[in-house]
Amino acid sequence: MRPLLFITNDDGISAKGIRSLIEVAQTFGDVLVIAPDKPQSGMGHAITVNQILRLEKSILFPDLEAYTCSGTPVDCVKLGIYEVMRRKPDLILSGINHGLNSASNVLYSGTMSAAVEGAMENIPSIGFSLDSFDSNADFSTAKDAIKMVLEYALKNTFPDHVCLNVNIPNVHKEALRGIKVCRQAHAFWEDRFDKRLDQFGKPYYWLTGEFKNEDHAEDTDLFALKEGFVSIVPTQFDLTAYKALENFKKLEQ
Amino acid sequence: MRPLLFITNDDGISAKGIRSLIEVAQTFGDVLVIAPDKPQSGMGHAITVNQILRLEKSILFPDLEAYTCSGTPVDCVKLGIYEVMRRKPDLILSGINHGLNSASNVLYSGTMSAAVEGAMENIPSIGFSLDSFDSNADFSTAKDAIKMVLEYALKNTFPDHVCLNVNIPNVHKEALRGIKVCRQAHAFWEDRFDKRLDQFGKPYYWLTGEFKNEDHAEDTDLFALKEGFVSIVPTQFDLTAYKALENFKKLEQ
Repeated sequence: MRPLLFITNDDGISAKGIRSLIEVAQTFGDVLVIAPDKPQSGMGHAITVNQILRLEKSILFPDLEAYTCSGTPVDCVKLGIYEVMRRKPDLILSGINHGLNSASNVLYSGTMSAAVEGAMENIPSIGFSLDSFDSNADFSTAKDAIKMVLEYALKNTFPDHVCLNVNIPNVHKEALRGIKVCRQAHAFWEDRFDKRLDQFGKPYYWLTGEFKNEDHAEDTDLFALKEGFVSIVPTQFDLTAYKALENFKKLEQ
Repeated sequence: MRPLLFITNDDGISAKGIRSLIEVAQTFGDVLVIAPDKPQSGMGHAITVNQILRLEKSILFPDLEAYTCSGTPVDCVKLGIYEVMRRKPDLILSGINHGLNSASNVLYSGTMSAAVEGAMENIPSIGFSLDSFDSNADFSTAKDAIKMVLEYALKNTFPDHVCLNVNIPNVHKEALRGIKVCRQAHAFWEDRFDKRLDQFGKPYYWLTGEFKNEDHAEDTDLFALKEGFVSIVPTQFDLTAYKALENFKKLEQ
């Protein structure tokens, strides 16, 4: 039996990124797609609990089973596993995201939250992101990198409840220096709100800001990307601050 | 100067939980509130990037500065820090959530994501949740527990980029056995979708399921809660699976 690869994303089913991921994945096995029916960037690990979910057959990929979902990327994974797929997928793939999900962006990322949800189900899962927000970005370097990662992923076992966060620099194939396995850089957004007035003179806000990196260590994803490598961060979801457990013991008295 | 306590939640500004949290917080300092204008349960670390945000003065708490926000709990924190507050708050408080955010629920929780966002800003932050979904739940035990935690938090330093996930059992004061500092239990939802047909015969889905705990270790939040303790999990946001870094080194070749 050919491997079953489940694919979702957060840019929505009509994005070029998911089409590129599907093209690579189809060379490895059977592909089933459930992707948001609209952009869901920045949705993090959101799930739809107070609203209904719709699931519709998509006509965009006539040669495979594909659906749109009215919910978030994590909803897509849950629907795939518990409602649509008749067998457990061999891999859950998410992306290719238009824009990096390196450093602390992993927390805001719908793309990576879909992979983390896969890890919660203990299914090998991988999120892919390219360093370009262009809706018509060139995904050829990304596709080469993904091919390498999928070859590895289908031949090797993932540790329990660990997924991969793969970020790909926006460079030509010849300029790509290889792959680095890294930790998540300790870097953050310095937010700013763009305050404007609507047609009635009432204020509204756009979230904007600048990404600041003060973590220049060579074992980080941001360093690898800057040096022209694909960064791969093995990712888990236990948020316990183990080193801080002792600090708070005083609270027990 | 009195301490400044910033308060948000994910159940929305009109919930009983946030009102109870405000009542306790006001005994410790000045309170500023920005809370979602509607329920935002399950929103995780979602932010609003493709839509505008609205911020409106709320009339619900006439004796303090309070706003509703059209976005997510994390949006509320970002607006508070970067747009509304004239000084850095001493504490960011989120909740009291109607329903527990123990174990892996921390990832889906808007309440806790607000606290994690505070930790990213390196401001001491705490999410509070009560084990009751009742909209008119009895928060008196929770208020006592929160008083203890706030006394601690205003007198002690938090480790950098660490926040607290405080879950409170739904018991009478006399039955509360104390506080336990714990790790996040390794326990998950077994999801199920309730498939129904709308008035046109088209299917729609409700996300439902059962929470399964197979992690019965005594150092977990779920164990503490079951034993009648308040559970406190020091929480951080580096998702790197450090133990798995070596596993994937083969990918570098």
